[in-house]
Amino acid sequence: MSNNLVGIIPPLTTPFIDDEVSTEKLIENLYKYENHMLSGYVLFGSNGENVFLNSDEKLSIIKSVREHTSRTLIVGAGLDSIKETISLCNEAADLGADYALVITPSFFKSEMKHRTFLNYYTKVADSIMIPVVIYNVPKFTNVNIETETIIELSSHPNIIGLKDSTENSSRISEIHANVHSGFKLIVGTASVLYPGLISGATAGILALANIAPDQCYQIYRLFKERDFEKALEIQNKMIPVNKAITSKFGVAGLKAAMDLLGFFGGHPRLPLEPLSEAQMIELKLILKQASLID
Amino acid sequence: MSNNLVGIIPPLTTPFIDDEVSTEKLIENLYKYENHMLSGYVLFGSNGENVFLNSDEKLSIIKSVREHTSRTLIVGAGLDSIKETISLCNEAADLGADYALVITPSFFKSEMKHRTFLNYYTKVADSIMIPVVIYNVPKFTNVNIETETIIELSSHPNIIGLKDSTENSSRISEIHANVHSGFKLIVGTASVLYPGLISGATAGILALANIAPDQCYQIYRLFKERDFEKALEIQNKMIPVNKAITSKFGVAGLKAAMDLLGFFGGHPRLPLEPLSEAQMIELKLILKQASLID
Amino acid sequence: MSNNLVGIIPPLTTPFIDDEVSTEKLIENLYKYENHMLSGYVLFGSNGENVFLNSDEKLSIIKSVREHTSRTLIVGAGLDSIKETISLCNEAADLGADYALVITPSFFKSEMKHRTFLNYYTKVADSIMIPVVIYNVPKFTNVNIETETIIELSSHPNIIGLKDSTENSSRISEIHANVHSGFKLIVGTASVLYPGLISGATAGILALANIAPDQCYQIYRLFKERDFEKALEIQNKMIPVNKAITSKFGVAGLKAAMDLLGFFGGHPRLPLEPLSEAQMIELKLILKQASLID
Amino acid sequence: MSNNLVGIIPPLTTPFIDDEVSTEKLIENLYKYENHMLSGYVLFGSNGENVFLNSDEKLSIIKSVREHTSRTLIVGAGLDSIKETISLCNEAADLGADYALVITPSFFKSEMKHRTFLNYYTKVADSIMIPVVIYNVPKFTNVNIETETIIELSSHPNIIGLKDSTENSSRISEIHANVHSGFKLIVGTASVLYPGLISGATAGILALANIAPDQCYQIYRLFKERDFEKALEIQNKMIPVNKAITSKFGVAGLKAAMDLLGFFGGHPRLPLEPLSEAQMIELKLILKQASLID
Repeated sequence: MSNNLVGIIPPLTTPFIDDEVSTEKLIENLYKYENHMLSGYVLFGSNGENVFLNSDEKLSIIKSVREHTSRTLIVGAGLDSIKETISLCNEAADLGADYALVITPSFFKSEMKHRTFLNYYTKVADSIMIPVVIYNVPKFTNVNIETETIIELSSHPNIIGLKDSTENSSRISEIHANVHSGFKLIVGTASVLYPGLISGATAGILALANIAPDQCYQIYRLFKERDFEKALEIQNKMIPVNKAITSKFGVAGLKAAMDLLGFFGGHPRLPLEPLSEAQMIELKLILKQASLID
Repeated sequence: MSNNLVGIIPPLTTPFIDDEVSTEKLIENLYKYENHMLSGYVLFGSNGENVFLNSDEKLSIIKSVREHTSRTLIVGAGLDSIKETISLCNEAADLGADYALVITPSFFKSEMKHRTFLNYYTKVADSIMIPVVIYNVPKFTNVNIETETIIELSSHPNIIGLKDSTENSSRISEIHANVHSGFKLIVGTASVLYPGLISGATAGILALANIAPDQCYQIYRLFKERDFEKALEIQNKMIPVNKAITSKFGVAGLKAAMDLLGFFGGHPRLPLEPLSEAQMIELKLILKQASLID
Repeated sequence: MSNNLVGIIPPLTTPFIDDEVSTEKLIENLYKYENHMLSGYVLFGSNGENVFLNSDEKLSIIKSVREHTSRTLIVGAGLDSIKETISLCNEAADLGADYALVITPSFFKSEMKHRTFLNYYTKVADSIMIPVVIYNVPKFTNVNIETETIIELSSHPNIIGLKDSTENSSRISEIHANVHSGFKLIVGTASVLYPGLISGATAGILALANIAPDQCYQIYRLFKERDFEKALEIQNKMIPVNKAITSKFGVAGLKAAMDLLGFFGGHPRLPLEPLSEAQMIELKLILKQASLID
Repeated sequence: MSNNLVGIIPPLTTPFIDDEVSTEKLIENLYKYENHMLSGYVLFGSNGENVFLNSDEKLSIIKSVREHTSRTLIVGAGLDSIKETISLCNEAADLGADYALVITPSFFKSEMKHRTFLNYYTKVADSIMIPVVIYNVPKFTNVNIETETIIELSSHPNIIGLKDSTENSSRISEIHANVHSGFKLIVGTASVLYPGLISGATAGILALANIAPDQCYQIYRLFKERDFEKALEIQNKMIPVNKAITSKFGVAGLKAAMDLLGFFGGHPRLPLEPLSEAQMIELKLILKQASLID
């Protein structure tokens, strides 16, 4: 595996044909992504419709993707159940996954506090064969893991990073100032990629990288070259696009944009629905204004 | 099976010994409950720590419980994935479950609207062998299914009821006025059992019934006998207890109370923790004030 | 004044003509309400657009209304500032108000806890010449005053009741079981009038009473006469109407419904806007289905 | 007045002695601040306990502060009532205020959308003699004004800026890319000062500037000098302090820190309470760790 979590990493969407997983289409997309400056791939992120996939589907996808790329492979594998999480992570590891992206447990919201998170992540990290990346995404979980908790967990030898999908870059800043240099901070949404990098992040796992991998990489490269004005300019151009494929139209919007941009998007799985015609028109306009399509 | 959803039904807790399921303790509890006026049992409700159990554990519990009771058996079997939900429901049906309690999908919160819920519940109900009870519990899911949606779903021949765990009995009232008489409305929290019955509910699936089955049944019976003052008196006495075992102390509190009242409670599964000593003292006081212990 | 808080009380809307208060229209409405079985009036409730009125406007309205009715007059007079609240309450008292309806302070949300509420209400109640009714309305304040706090405050000689505008009647139940009989519990929304009365409330301050005073009164009377089935029937018929004039269309909807039902509604004050044409059509349909209009 | 909104601006706390405003103490603080590199002052920000002050107190404070400084004076003057807002803004202008900081109206939360905000801010800006700075602070208002709305309002000749107190710097970025260069973007919380400046903000109105004006200014200066590493280092050192005086301990914490750092803090006004002894110990530790006290 590539030995670190740096650069731009798309959380791949899962193609469905007639509501069934199409690994073939996924691999076709993968081949296209291999030609872009991407450091790796996430399978089964939120927008990978992780919650709609069963265990067999997941393992079959990992196997297939692993055969077709040598880039870093990060697998979304967190569930409320510690036992199930460990089991899935280890199966993923056996199939060649490099990292486990473990979302915060969240069902018993009012119990999800410092101690509970320590219990959960310590137990998982102790028991799996690949390193853990903590995944914080309050917009889906309605739970937020505090910076103090992450700082404490960062000393665990098998917990090596955080994907933070809030838009609050001061979290990155604060954690960065309090963890060892090996602990990787990963921006989870393109809207704050640039402020996140400035604040200490080394990578971005970005839905936007599914449709605009080059623009995401440019922001990253320009930041590294300290060309801040140019980085910000591209960042700003991408903000409306990123909104469209996340908060505005969700995974259906992301997939529709993929179809418009030469990848296979297709429909989200039921019970989600594809975009309406009116939404498609709005999406196209946004992509056009950002010069992603003509 | 008993052919209807009426009366008091405890959502059984799942006993763990050394963090492993103890079916033995579960059956011991069951034998005790069989001596009380209970109409059935829910397995894998929220407080059954459903999210911490894997598929094998669930199937083994259903099998064992089915062998030891002829009362109605309702199995919590909802997941975001339609496919997985159908598969689990049908396995439960094969093992003798009478009803599937299907929690609202919730991960993609902002997409969980009228159309999505129709898609989800119609597909599930079309494909499973036992009737569906919709389960609405916003405090855990951060999603609320609107009364209009439930009313529309009530016409599906295989969707036969709703467990509503909000504390808003006007929802029961409104739905009751707009559905056919076979559609069962079930109160999901003891704090509004009495107002719920008054508003058209026929049953209560109540965490409280794990520790105070007789008091819950009395409220139900007194309501049926139109002895409203007496019903309300017991209801009021139980409100602080119900708070203690739900919002205040969660499943750890419910299990601790079970231990104090002659059932096997034990610890919740990791990452949850048992009550602290100070919390135990407070819990005992509350149970004493309600005359449940001396 | 009428010496107690029982029965049905409309929180009067404030008529505006060209965005200016029309006391004349308010008095015209009042004359109509005097012919209905209403126990009193609230001025400057939430739907009275309290937050859009200045002090002079409020005092002038109180003066005018007091001159035209001998029924109980309850004046909404709570602000975050204790000092301002006291001053407004005492001015209202001088003009003949019978009770002060004091909304929970709410700006510093995370500080609004037991101790803060005790500080606030004790200080206000100590300093004003008329009795205080606590007003809890989380949908507007995003703050909820706990039942424990209300129970503690109920022992203050000048705090004599609670208007609770949540839809959770177990709050009424729990408080009722723990306060002296003189402490009045008032339902704050028509959707739970009947469950609230059953649970110990003696009155309803209901937006719905602005447009359907007789139906509200009937629910109250039938409850008193223990004709529960009939009470529930009317309650259920009113739920969609109540939703339309509260959560669905807000104060603009309430005022539009008043216009349709023979009262003066008019437009809400800026920045709020009147209903659109499409909304008007929907509102009329709802009123027609409830047999309020032909 | 200083002719633009750049640099660091503390939102002054309001000193109380025996729960009464002490203008004397406020002026003493002001004299101290005059020796620091601050561009101006905000009166009656959230932490100025704006909601606890009446109109007379506010006007008297403005008058006094205006007499003692020639720096930019920004006055918090937003209320739900358009009429009252206009009246207060114009009184403030008469007394020498340079800008009105107008918080989003928020009481009717579900109505607070694009159109309503346009109505509100347009009407206010049309009618007052000093320029309007929009103030967005969802943690207190539970309302968020969308970037699209701000961009549209930015074309009004009398709306000249935004104080954004979310921690999401992509909002700054997005607005910056879509407004004319005269529209000023102001960071509203020190935790994202640096990312905010990078994203296009020109100033910070920061509670932290009440206790650490030099550190705030250094972040600003280092950013202007493009010494990003150093800026970030100070920013990171201040994050725990900023948390302590905002989300952790609120205005009571901010005032306690002022007392520890040579300013007059005192107690917040009732119903708020001063820090407990345990909280004081924790606060001191945090200030010590940030080298603000020995």
